[in-house]
Amino acid sequence: MSSSRRMDHMTWPEIEASKSKPVIVPIGSTEQHSQHLPLGVDAMIASHVSEDLAERIDGIVAPTMNYGYKSKPLSGGGPLFPGTIDMNGVTVINQMHDVLGELIADGFTKIVVMNAHFENEAFIIEAIDLITRETKGVATIVETNWWDPLPENVVEQVFDGLVFPGWALEHAAVTETSLMMHYEPELVHMDRVIDEGNVTPKAYVRYPVRKGDVPDYGGLATPAGSSAERGKLIVDACIDAVADICATEFGE
Amino acid sequence: MSSSRRMDHMTWPEIEASKSKPVIVPIGSTEQHSQHLPLGVDAMIASHVSEDLAERIDGIVAPTMNYGYKSKPLSGGGPLFPGTIDMNGVTVINQMHDVLGELIADGFTKIVVMNAHFENEAFIIEAIDLITRETKGVATIVETNWWDPLPENVVEQVFDGLVFPGWALEHAAVTETSLMMHYEPELVHMDRVIDEGNVTPKAYVRYPVRKGDVPDYGGLATPAGSSAERGKLIVDACIDAVADICATEFGE
Amino acid sequence: MSSSRRMDHMTWPEIEASKSKPVIVPIGSTEQHSQHLPLGVDAMIASHVSEDLAERIDGIVAPTMNYGYKSKPLSGGGPLFPGTIDMNGVTVINQMHDVLGELIADGFTKIVVMNAHFENEAFIIEAIDLITRETKGVATIVETNWWDPLPENVVEQVFDGLVFPGWALEHAAVTETSLMMHYEPELVHMDRVIDEGNVTPKAYVRYPVRKGDVPDYGGLATPAGSSAERGKLIVDACIDAVADICATEFGE
Amino acid sequence: MSSSRRMDHMTWPEIEASKSKPVIVPIGSTEQHSQHLPLGVDAMIASHVSEDLAERIDGIVAPTMNYGYKSKPLSGGGPLFPGTIDMNGVTVINQMHDVLGELIADGFTKIVVMNAHFENEAFIIEAIDLITRETKGVATIVETNWWDPLPENVVEQVFDGLVFPGWALEHAAVTETSLMMHYEPELVHMDRVIDEGNVTPKAYVRYPVRKGDVPDYGGLATPAGSSAERGKLIVDACIDAVADICATEFGE
Amino acid sequence: MSSSRRMDHMTWPEIEASKSKPVIVPIGSTEQHSQHLPLGVDAMIASHVSEDLAERIDGIVAPTMNYGYKSKPLSGGGPLFPGTIDMNGVTVINQMHDVLGELIADGFTKIVVMNAHFENEAFIIEAIDLITRETKGVATIVETNWWDPLPENVVEQVFDGLVFPGWALEHAAVTETSLMMHYEPELVHMDRVIDEGNVTPKAYVRYPVRKGDVPDYGGLATPAGSSAERGKLIVDACIDAVADICATEFGE
Amino acid sequence: MSSSRRMDHMTWPEIEASKSKPVIVPIGSTEQHSQHLPLGVDAMIASHVSEDLAERIDGIVAPTMNYGYKSKPLSGGGPLFPGTIDMNGVTVINQMHDVLGELIADGFTKIVVMNAHFENEAFIIEAIDLITRETKGVATIVETNWWDPLPENVVEQVFDGLVFPGWALEHAAVTETSLMMHYEPELVHMDRVIDEGNVTPKAYVRYPVRKGDVPDYGGLATPAGSSAERGKLIVDACIDAVADICATEFGE
Repeated sequence: MSSSRRMDHMTWPEIEASKSKPVIVPIGSTEQHSQHLPLGVDAMIASHVSEDLAERIDGIVAPTMNYGYKSKPLSGGGPLFPGTIDMNGVTVINQMHDVLGELIADGFTKIVVMNAHFENEAFIIEAIDLITRETKGVATIVETNWWDPLPENVVEQVFDGLVFPGWALEHAAVTETSLMMHYEPELVHMDRVIDEGNVTPKAYVRYPVRKGDVPDYGGLATPAGSSAERGKLIVDACIDAVADICATEFGE
Repeated sequence: MSSSRRMDHMTWPEIEASKSKPVIVPIGSTEQHSQHLPLGVDAMIASHVSEDLAERIDGIVAPTMNYGYKSKPLSGGGPLFPGTIDMNGVTVINQMHDVLGELIADGFTKIVVMNAHFENEAFIIEAIDLITRETKGVATIVETNWWDPLPENVVEQVFDGLVFPGWALEHAAVTETSLMMHYEPELVHMDRVIDEGNVTPKAYVRYPVRKGDVPDYGGLATPAGSSAERGKLIVDACIDAVADICATEFGE
Repeated sequence: MSSSRRMDHMTWPEIEASKSKPVIVPIGSTEQHSQHLPLGVDAMIASHVSEDLAERIDGIVAPTMNYGYKSKPLSGGGPLFPGTIDMNGVTVINQMHDVLGELIADGFTKIVVMNAHFENEAFIIEAIDLITRETKGVATIVETNWWDPLPENVVEQVFDGLVFPGWALEHAAVTETSLMMHYEPELVHMDRVIDEGNVTPKAYVRYPVRKGDVPDYGGLATPAGSSAERGKLIVDACIDAVADICATEFGE
Repeated sequence: MSSSRRMDHMTWPEIEASKSKPVIVPIGSTEQHSQHLPLGVDAMIASHVSEDLAERIDGIVAPTMNYGYKSKPLSGGGPLFPGTIDMNGVTVINQMHDVLGELIADGFTKIVVMNAHFENEAFIIEAIDLITRETKGVATIVETNWWDPLPENVVEQVFDGLVFPGWALEHAAVTETSLMMHYEPELVHMDRVIDEGNVTPKAYVRYPVRKGDVPDYGGLATPAGSSAERGKLIVDACIDAVADICATEFGE
Repeated sequence: MSSSRRMDHMTWPEIEASKSKPVIVPIGSTEQHSQHLPLGVDAMIASHVSEDLAERIDGIVAPTMNYGYKSKPLSGGGPLFPGTIDMNGVTVINQMHDVLGELIADGFTKIVVMNAHFENEAFIIEAIDLITRETKGVATIVETNWWDPLPENVVEQVFDGLVFPGWALEHAAVTETSLMMHYEPELVHMDRVIDEGNVTPKAYVRYPVRKGDVPDYGGLATPAGSSAERGKLIVDACIDAVADICATEFGE
Repeated sequence: MSSSRRMDHMTWPEIEASKSKPVIVPIGSTEQHSQHLPLGVDAMIASHVSEDLAERIDGIVAPTMNYGYKSKPLSGGGPLFPGTIDMNGVTVINQMHDVLGELIADGFTKIVVMNAHFENEAFIIEAIDLITRETKGVATIVETNWWDPLPENVVEQVFDGLVFPGWALEHAAVTETSLMMHYEPELVHMDRVIDEGNVTPKAYVRYPVRKGDVPDYGGLATPAGSSAERGKLIVDACIDAVADICATEFGE
């Protein structure tokens, strides 16, 4: 945990010397992840993937944003579970806006926002749009995550012998559990897994959110079959794919 | 680093079971700390002190806010050093406001905000005031840091054989360096220390900030004489004092 | 166009008499829709579907919000096409928040937000969440659109003999063109269709947006094969599905 | 209703070809208009006058903003009538600001904001001022309405045989009723007119607004004597006057 | 100037004892007032009228807001004159909102906002509306000024032998000059009066504002004939009228 | 009180002629000041010191901001005393931001913000930082107050024969009382002084604020020994020191 690629572990002269490198900004959330995974899953995965990516593309990693946008029932279980600590949309926009603005003011022109909490996406992109206008596009900013860049055949491999329920339901299920088994095995409690199969997602949103909108243990799909190996498959393919994106967008 | 007192390491049923405990919210910054300390000093100290405090008072620790309010020349070196990544005042207010609001919505009524970046203070307190009004004061919220609660005699002990330059200049100096030697020794580079003595603080603020407003290596006072022992002195006295504060404010 | 179900065509005593009915709020956008469809596609579809739905469920229709959130390259062609007139995220949130708040203040407790512009969604839901908290959940608010509720077999029917490129690319393509042929045939210019096949969507977002990120005629997938009949298929199935949702959420 | 002067009926290449033309932005409200006129009066009048003006000056018409600032008792009856759906001042400012900003970004430099809801005015002008500063005045923006440009002798003609109560009371009275009889006769219900004469306006504002601050049927002055002919008189004179304004401000 | 009716001259126990009295909040501006009147005209008139009113109705006067909303060419000469120091609309709203909120929190339930700068009005009323909703209407808030309550016959008396140009042009003209001769004679420089007669007001607003939109000396109508006596006429009638308003709205 | 150095007493041509001079912006508060001093202490001291400074450095004085940020128990007694009328942090930031922006737009490049209410400081500086960025640093802005620039030996002189309790407790105590005896003797009521000695300040902040957090008469330290002479000592030394600061920062 003392990688010299983490900005918070570097001194300012080291940053000064790194301005031409890509800088990766991890953003997660503090959100319930069923009974077998901890609240910090998204923040931890965002951090780890960012560090692995930095290693691959010779980049550096900004400090992780540990709080994100509101958990929704259909993708994260929603606000009624204790420990789900969310921020309003405007706050998420402003947080990302200010941090990107400072990185650009420092001279960074190659920025990757690595998001591990689906609900953050629209607000992150709003922040990127706003800061891009204000700074007249001097920096190239890529926003991505660990799931969208995965090639279809890798998803198939990851779910080999299992059933892929669709990304919307992959909350505290096979992919996140496997990633945590790969990165933070001691925080995964497979003995506490409650498996009630997969939820059938609704085609709409209804407020107020009510107890019972999601299974009361907090999961949306089964984590059965998760393994560190499947986690590594995801990470390797993700890093490959995002490294390619960076090569395309930042030039060699 | 896998303390079960960290919310991000806990599952939601564990949070459910902890609602009557104090919850501690650490907030730091991403700010230059001279040439011998890394950018994450404030965030790391806030996190560690919060975990030690949680251990003492049987509390839990919310995820750390790694970005804070703007570094000022007279207390942190200011915005011109690369790697100082700040947020606007409104963003700092909203971030803390939203997180406190969610903790209160979850049922927590004993909250400590542990701040390790002086410039955050006014904005944190504004957030506390706003959320207290909105929630009609159902939660008791204490805001403090690691320096204000230190008894005068402890400060004297810490600076035994040294000269205390006043808290304003204690940026990347004896206290922060000693705390980092206690908590994160491998991130302290005493061989890189540049010691030009103590700055004489100005009695006013002037904008725009200019190169030369502070010494160009980034420090405001000498870290000479720092040691892990002095760091431990600070931590022990701080935890004692804040535990007393919590006893007073939260009941036994 | 003089349906008595449109609020803007009703007098206030007629509104007074309708408070127990569902009220439907249509929101669209002003956005390029390739060379054969006009800028108002989303607003017009939202309005028409809302009126059809109102007829079915004995509801009324609030005035249409004609401007929405920013068009994105991967789902709408992006901001570089003239005539794409977008609002910032905060503005979209506040617009919906204020209107919902007034409907609730007037006594409406059954509200459907009918969205026809994908990019609006996250900001609409933020508005719904905020107003729900402020009004303590007295109103049941459903957010949906014309695509998510379509049963899979209807999508197959709609694309009978054609290839469904996925919803992300369905911008100015078969579904929207068919809906416009059904609702506003005189505004569809099939003679101007430019068909360069389907775009391959990227797994990430990159800013600044550049000319060339999408085909320069503005479409993402072919509208070839569009017809009023396919449009009617969509409408009928959508109305059926949303009427069912309303029955579930609003009672009988 | 399929005029090619409406932006929402045009394709983006048609917009591209129209950048040197004036663009007219209609803004109305959703507000009670006594018992004989519908809620959409302001939005409909703004739209129709804008289209007539566009025809005259070879301009185009942006989509109508159907929601506006809060109805006030002394000019619109106030918030207590069901169906009056208002937005906060900040929202009205931001909505207009964002839309004007996008029009200017698209290259339009001749903009007319056509307002038909008195209460909108201060907030529209704030938006115009803000966007003018941000875009360094590259566009000429005219804000007007259908009443201020009317020459005094036209007002006399319109009220020939009637008594003009002053513009403040002309809410759902002779001018608006006549305009609706001219533009949307089927939405005017003269059989439902309640005529209690004219209100005496107060020289101050008092909050909270109370039932009884205005007559409980919602009107402020009598619509007796309204006719489509009087409506046409207003429209013709207004278009003449605003066309002159445009000639003065935009060049030939 | 040491009236015990000024809150800033009172101690907190004196405020405590005054909670059942009306409190008057004066708001002015810092705005050019031609060459013979100083920038503080609006703030000074607001203050003096408030103190006179307080004397009459046994009320107290809150500290004056010396900055207000933007000066407009047609009513104040506009932003291009040096010394016109304005605030954005949102700031004016928030300033009044916060101050009213605190007065209400202190227990005041009879509040008069005395405005002396026409352009402030819409933003003041927005603030009153917002705080009234938030505080559920516990306080009665009257918003008025020194011109609207004047009976028509008083206006005729004030302009006896002169020509009333309409309120819109009464900027640095007969009424304001006379009020200043009554209240602050040493700040009136009749020897510097430039008299170019009355401006013909435009029926619209155009941005950007340009030099030449108003006469370059800054006045809109002639101050010729101003006198302290005319000023006293205005004040006496205004105080009478507003005292009546207060009696009506606050009870005896 | 008719100094020609007050902007509100000057005409716009006099401002035009003063653009190269320093402009001083006084900001105070409306806050309880124990039982012997009035609510306007901070605003009055800010105004007077600014006028004295203007006289010394040939500057001019902008109108005073009479409302400021929230009073805190440990430095001002807090919000529970009637007559303490505060604004939210965002409002204080925006008020100062807008006014500074207008001064800079008018051509002023030498600006001093003279603050007399400790709690304002962080929000004032945020405003200065924001406007400095927006205007690319064209103006030099100094923020100071009347206490920080005092040389240590002057503080000793002022407290000759008395005990200095530290600046935090100097609320309605010796320094403020002496300043008021110097500037506004008729508003000081030494006969009402309640002297319960000095409060022991807490090393933390706790919300909600409660009656009893500070002595119920409102003071934090004794004003015993206050005199106009001590007040003059402070003023003279402060003006000397700030004049030096201006010479350093603005050049001769």
